[in-house]
Amino acid sequence: MKLLEDKILAEGRVYPGKVLKVGAFLNHQIDVPFLTVLGEEFYRLFKDENITKILTVETSGIAVAYPVAQLFNVPLLFGKKNKTKNLSDDCYCAKVTSYTHGTVYEVVVEKQFLTSADHVLLIDDFLANGCALEGLLDICAQAGATVAGAGIVIEKAFQDGGKKLRERGLRVESLARIADMDAENGITFISQD
Amino acid sequence: MKLLEDKILAEGRVYPGKVLKVGAFLNHQIDVPFLTVLGEEFYRLFKDENITKILTVETSGIAVAYPVAQLFNVPLLFGKKNKTKNLSDDCYCAKVTSYTHGTVYEVVVEKQFLTSADHVLLIDDFLANGCALEGLLDICAQAGATVAGAGIVIEKAFQDGGKKLRERGLRVESLARIADMDAENGITFISQD
Repeated sequence: MKLLEDKILAEGRVYPGKVLKVGAFLNHQIDVPFLTVLGEEFYRLFKDENITKILTVETSGIAVAYPVAQLFNVPLLFGKKNKTKNLSDDCYCAKVTSYTHGTVYEVVVEKQFLTSADHVLLIDDFLANGCALEGLLDICAQAGATVAGAGIVIEKAFQDGGKKLRERGLRVESLARIADMDAENGITFISQD
Repeated sequence: MKLLEDKILAEGRVYPGKVLKVGAFLNHQIDVPFLTVLGEEFYRLFKDENITKILTVETSGIAVAYPVAQLFNVPLLFGKKNKTKNLSDDCYCAKVTSYTHGTVYEVVVEKQFLTSADHVLLIDDFLANGCALEGLLDICAQAGATVAGAGIVIEKAFQDGGKKLRERGLRVESLARIADMDAENGITFISQD
C-alpha cells in the first residue's frame, strides 16, 4: 500500500537492531484518520468473508483493529497480556515470546467471548517472528473458532513469521512488507503489485 | 447517561471487593457501535473547547478514546505503562498506583507528541482513586499543555478520585456515576438530571 509506505518513510525512524519506530502515527500517537484508511483496506480485502469478530492483542493492536470492527460492524476482542484478578478463571490462554521486549508473556481471552460460532479476522500492527499471531491462532483453535486470515499493518519480511504462517495455510495480508532496513541505508519494501 | 447505566446493569457483573467487570462491552470484548455512541456524548460535552489532542493511558482507554478522536479529528495519544527499549529517553514520565492490580507503574509519553501548544481532553474508561488521571495531568503540566477536562465512562463515586480532581478545578464528565455496589444488592447510580 503506497500510502502506508510513504507514511513509514516520512514518519518512521530506524534504530540499530532493525527496530522501526512508528510512534508518530501507529503505536503511541495515533493518526486516527490515517488508521481509518488502513481499516478500509482491511475491509476491502476480507469483506467477502463472513467475519463475526475482530481479534487482536493489547496494546498497539487495539487502535488498528477499532476502525476494522467499525466497518465490519462486529465486536472487537483483544487478548490481554498477563492474568489479573479482573479476569475470570474461565479463559483461553497461550504463551507468546515478545521479540521487542525480550520477554515471554501469556495472552488471555475469556471463553465466553469466543466460540465455535465465530469466524475471526486477526489484526495486528506488526508481524515479525509471528509469535503473537501464533498465540491468537492457538486461542482460536482452543475455542473451535475458524480464522479467515490476518491483517497486518507492517510486516518485517526479513524475519520468518509471515513465511511460517503462510506455509501453515493462513491468509496473511500485510499492507506494507519491509524487505530490509537499517539506520544507514533506510527502508526497502517488497513490491506488492 | 441512561443508555450506559442500562448497559452496565444488563452486562456488568459485580464481584467481591467492589470490582465491576464490564469486559462484555468495554475493556475486553469491545462493543464498537456502543462506544461510538459514548464518543458522541463526549464530543457533545467538550465540542466548544478547541481540543487539539486526546490523551489516554493504555490499555482500556484506547478503544474509548478512538471514536472521540475521530469526532474531534485530532490525534489520539496514549501514555505507555513501563518503559521499553522502543521508547526514546526524551519522555515525560509520571508514577501511577493501580488500584485494580495493586501495583505502581510509570506512565510515559514522548515529549515530541505533547507540547505547550496542545489543549488536551483526557479520556479513560474508569475513575476510582484518580491516580491514572493525576498521572496524565502531571504529564500535561510537564509539557506545558492545557487541559480542557476529563471524559470518563464509569466513575466509582464511592471512591474519592472524582471529588479530589473536581476540587482541584478539573472539569470531570463521567457518563455513569456509581454511588455504591456489591454482589448482593447490585449497583446504584448517582442521578445526573
